[in-house]
Amino acid sequence: MSIAVTILGSSSAKPTADRHPSAQAVNVNEQYYLVDAGEGVQQRLIRAGINPLKLRGVFISHLHGDHVYGLLPLLSTLGLYGKRTPLPIYAPRPFGEILEAHLRYFDTALPYEPQWHEVDTTANRIIFENDSLEVWSLPLRHRVPTSGYLFREKEPALNVSKYAIERYGLSIAQIVAAKRGEAITTADGEVVENSRITYRPYRPVSYAYCSDTNYSARLASMVEGVDLLYHEATYAADERRTARDRGHSTTVDAANVALKAGAGRLIIGHFSTRYKDLEPLLQQSREVFAATDLAIEGQTFTVTGQRHDKI
Amino acid sequence: MSIAVTILGSSSAKPTADRHPSAQAVNVNEQYYLVDAGEGVQQRLIRAGINPLKLRGVFISHLHGDHVYGLLPLLSTLGLYGKRTPLPIYAPRPFGEILEAHLRYFDTALPYEPQWHEVDTTANRIIFENDSLEVWSLPLRHRVPTSGYLFREKEPALNVSKYAIERYGLSIAQIVAAKRGEAITTADGEVVENSRITYRPYRPVSYAYCSDTNYSARLASMVEGVDLLYHEATYAADERRTARDRGHSTTVDAANVALKAGAGRLIIGHFSTRYKDLEPLLQQSREVFAATDLAIEGQTFTVTGQRHDKI
Repeated sequence: MSIAVTILGSSSAKPTADRHPSAQAVNVNEQYYLVDAGEGVQQRLIRAGINPLKLRGVFISHLHGDHVYGLLPLLSTLGLYGKRTPLPIYAPRPFGEILEAHLRYFDTALPYEPQWHEVDTTANRIIFENDSLEVWSLPLRHRVPTSGYLFREKEPALNVSKYAIERYGLSIAQIVAAKRGEAITTADGEVVENSRITYRPYRPVSYAYCSDTNYSARLASMVEGVDLLYHEATYAADERRTARDRGHSTTVDAANVALKAGAGRLIIGHFSTRYKDLEPLLQQSREVFAATDLAIEGQTFTVTGQRHDKI
Repeated sequence: MSIAVTILGSSSAKPTADRHPSAQAVNVNEQYYLVDAGEGVQQRLIRAGINPLKLRGVFISHLHGDHVYGLLPLLSTLGLYGKRTPLPIYAPRPFGEILEAHLRYFDTALPYEPQWHEVDTTANRIIFENDSLEVWSLPLRHRVPTSGYLFREKEPALNVSKYAIERYGLSIAQIVAAKRGEAITTADGEVVENSRITYRPYRPVSYAYCSDTNYSARLASMVEGVDLLYHEATYAADERRTARDRGHSTTVDAANVALKAGAGRLIIGHFSTRYKDLEPLLQQSREVFAATDLAIEGQTFTVTGQRHDKI
């Protein structure tokens, strides 16, 4: 029904006085997921009004410190908060070893289990799902194994319209059949196609997090039609070579991915500390893809699937 | 000549929206030292206007995460800044193993050497010195091996007063002898005692950092006469039992150490998240030791030895 992305950090490797390293809270129908966990993320969550105990899972793109240094302190604090339920953590290898070393030195007695799930950064596949959500891994092109993440709401179950129930006098058995997608036959022997009596209550929405990465046309096809795309733009357009050499993207690279993917909206972030004023970066992206915004810390970007209450 | 302590973090284990975990920058005659390094310390340094490259050494009290989680990201960032000179780090065991694991997973190629020096948390001894400064370890009483740190300026060398040089017509050789503390004999055969012609250009000052710890009368005697004392006060006076059980102190414990030590001034900090309003904590300490202040983040407390330019 909706996905809301709160920017907790928008800086690249070196923090600035105002910008923190990468982290986002992704709220899918009031279930929160943390995507990347740069230093200070636990305090960024608190400041954003998000109780860290509400996190249902953590997704780490890669094991450069600016994307993960905040996770271990957060795991400790969740212990102090008295968390009891396991916390799934999706991250590339060797996160398991890092976690083990951390627990050995700092938290021998956490009251809950941080559960590491290895992410294959070469595969584009579903790595997490529940009744209403799928999360896909997105192979990225960075200096170390890196995965983006695509959050995609599942197609909601069919509803049967109240109007159709009354008009055709549908029985419980007929309603159940219609929800399965079947046509029904009325008392008069009329066959009514399923599409005339059912509807999807909302359009599922999607969000893709793509950081850190070089420009990748393949990535654009993996996120085709995404409603909201976060794509790193570490550098301005004139630093194309630096971006390419360091496994990063420019503002124009990010916009080109959004354009090629047919994305609804684009957020750019992971800005190099060299850029004090971000407005020129925004303008560069907007020239290629107008619906671009800057990842400003504390801001929340929401995409909502239209409700279809009637047909 | 002066010691200036900038509070970078004043919270206990769990951070709040406004308070960061323990960290301080200690400036001794424009040489900076970091004392404890809670999460986010590199950004706190930047916000305080202190270039992290200026740090001459790091002193870690103990290996609870809220005192050390910010150090490893700082070490990484110093590498990105291009630091070349070694950084001495004083910390209890097993910091060496933690550092080694960190370098293995995150920074295989730092351009400088983080040099760990093991601190014996049972000994009260000099662990660092240069021409003008000594740093002493202070055994503390916490749940894990913990050391406080006493920064003590050395007694400055004797100066010979210009007045005496003129009055007695002192030769270079006599001035050198006077600087060594010797009496001199004038051309008239008069013996002039050293104390009549020399002076110390300033009074050396001292600062002690004591966190985390139970109340300790022994600690008070180890910091006797200290000019500025930071003593943890995790809990209010009415939580004496909780403080004792958890290896912490109350506001009154901290004030009693300052009183017993004959300290010049006291700063209390490491506040539990339960205290939103810190004013009552301040009043409790002040009832016992009037010259108490709260550790407010971003504030700098300076103690200066009086200059003696003339005698």
